[in-house]
Amino acid sequence: MRGQPDLSGAPTSAKPFLAPFRGEALAPPPVWLMRQAGRYLPEYRATRAKAGSFLKLCYTPAMAAEVTLQPIVRYGFDAAILFSDILVVPDALGQRLEFVEGEGPRLEPIRDVASLARLDAGKCAATFERVFETVARVRADLPKETALIGFCGAPWTVATYMVEGGGSKDQAETRLWAYRDPGGFAQLIHLLTEASVEYLCGQVKAGADVLQIFDTWAGSLPKEQFFQWVEYPTATIVRRVREVYPNVPIIGFPRGSGVKAERYVEVTGVQGLGCDTATPAWAMHDLARQTGAVVQGNLDPLVLVAGGPLLEAYVRELLGVLRDVPYIFNLGHGIVPQTPPEHVARLVDLVRKGVN
Amino acid sequence: MRGQPDLSGAPTSAKPFLAPFRGEALAPPPVWLMRQAGRYLPEYRATRAKAGSFLKLCYTPAMAAEVTLQPIVRYGFDAAILFSDILVVPDALGQRLEFVEGEGPRLEPIRDVASLARLDAGKCAATFERVFETVARVRADLPKETALIGFCGAPWTVATYMVEGGGSKDQAETRLWAYRDPGGFAQLIHLLTEASVEYLCGQVKAGADVLQIFDTWAGSLPKEQFFQWVEYPTATIVRRVREVYPNVPIIGFPRGSGVKAERYVEVTGVQGLGCDTATPAWAMHDLARQTGAVVQGNLDPLVLVAGGPLLEAYVRELLGVLRDVPYIFNLGHGIVPQTPPEHVARLVDLVRKGVN
Repeated sequence: MRGQPDLSGAPTSAKPFLAPFRGEALAPPPVWLMRQAGRYLPEYRATRAKAGSFLKLCYTPAMAAEVTLQPIVRYGFDAAILFSDILVVPDALGQRLEFVEGEGPRLEPIRDVASLARLDAGKCAATFERVFETVARVRADLPKETALIGFCGAPWTVATYMVEGGGSKDQAETRLWAYRDPGGFAQLIHLLTEASVEYLCGQVKAGADVLQIFDTWAGSLPKEQFFQWVEYPTATIVRRVREVYPNVPIIGFPRGSGVKAERYVEVTGVQGLGCDTATPAWAMHDLARQTGAVVQGNLDPLVLVAGGPLLEAYVRELLGVLRDVPYIFNLGHGIVPQTPPEHVARLVDLVRKGVN
Repeated sequence: MRGQPDLSGAPTSAKPFLAPFRGEALAPPPVWLMRQAGRYLPEYRATRAKAGSFLKLCYTPAMAAEVTLQPIVRYGFDAAILFSDILVVPDALGQRLEFVEGEGPRLEPIRDVASLARLDAGKCAATFERVFETVARVRADLPKETALIGFCGAPWTVATYMVEGGGSKDQAETRLWAYRDPGGFAQLIHLLTEASVEYLCGQVKAGADVLQIFDTWAGSLPKEQFFQWVEYPTATIVRRVREVYPNVPIIGFPRGSGVKAERYVEVTGVQGLGCDTATPAWAMHDLARQTGAVVQGNLDPLVLVAGGPLLEAYVRELLGVLRDVPYIFNLGHGIVPQTPPEHVARLVDLVRKGVN
């Protein structure tokens, strides 16, 4: 049945990527890289130029599928991740969005309950359909042994972009709104939670094997607010998606959550935990043991840029420390544009063949 | 003896701020706030306007002492912190520095070993002397029961400003230099370590009771690099300063260090640990027990901006959870300019009288 990987009975799946979610510690571990489709690849830059704009690229299924597949063709990663952006959801809700070359996303900020009237959950379907078509196209073209990851931004992180009007250093306006008017801010989070459930379920229906929820700015919230705006909405998404697709593993990536990561797994019910660069390998090992979740990460993307013996040392440590727990090799944050493509090839080689 | 608080025999010091460093869990705990002298205070803005430029304010002892004392006069904090900037050290070393209104610091970037020739450790003394004079003036005017905190930026964090040419989102250029050319980058860190020792010792000699080392960007480094560029240089500074002033407590503030905080205390030998906003109170309690260090923090500065019941709830939690360990009340990051001064008064009141 399309979109629902069979995790129920077979002793071995054709997709190594799914083995850790059955509790297997694979050697070598499956490997993919956050932002593996992106500006560091010349073939991506060519398609991006053809598309004209970043959003056009996201919303044109043929081209979005093409760039999704490019790193699979080049490196044979164990999973492809849908090429898209976490801001598709606010865009689908009707918040004006543009990507300014060299500056990143710009949105018309929403900073109070009254402005929520500008958003319309009923409008999402049309925009989401284009993404679902990309997923279906990728699914059709993907090698049988390669998993397909769908994703969304977590409500908190997406909200920060919607409130700040783009990226921000400290998410100050968003935190202030949440602190001053929790009831009003909860309406935005609720809207995003509902839209994210619809968005993720549609991706699974179209062919995604696994889902990842990116919470880039989870680290900016103190304890109770971390529960209220990070853990609780994520738990809701996980529960609702799994009501429909009980066997689809969901990976949470609460960047900067530090010592709160263990409880995050317990509260949200995610099956996988993305770990950021600041998390030492020993702590990832502890988290895997304590929570039973698959751990994923966490090479510094700038170590990949630097390459050489430092890259080897970090790969060796991650593979060594995490060899006896269910683990997926990845970066601790997205790959950066200045990454030499040959360093990525070297990395995949080191992971697959081991560092001696 | 000026500059060396007597921590040796007396059962009670005249300065409550120093009690936690003797292992006492004071009720109420001592309280001060990072950036307590700053733009949120009208009296600060008046002095700042008189000074003309931010650097002029830092380097004019009469004015710098005045703004250091302003929050003590207004709120009666248990400690004053020298008004200065962590970039005094690169400025003293000869790197061109300016503060651009509304944009923050700008420096002529240093990105390789060759550029280190532009720096001259021999030049520092003249610049440092002006800061030491500020310390002496503050010491003379400070109430007997109020402690005086001297400070510097940690070599890693100061280096990021020197390499990036100012503040940065991810310290990418600095990390890349450190990863690609650790031997060369170590020369910059060494230079900063030496200058910091001289700078901190001078502050103690001039009258500082306690020192704090700010490592705002400690969170951007993965494990081995965290040891090499955060823990090791800080350990060197702590050891060298305490060779001269064995009784002066040193507080480290490795922001974003997450699960690495416990080892940070062990490796560096700091007597106090500043905790960031992301650290839950229970984790601060664990850290106090595990390391024996005084914990300090960690109210979200934006909760202070918001005020009201949320402020009360957080203060209540911090005071409750940390009541039986040596603890200093503070924010988890610097106070922000839009903070209403009356919220600060309310906070001090809540800490001193307790939340009912």
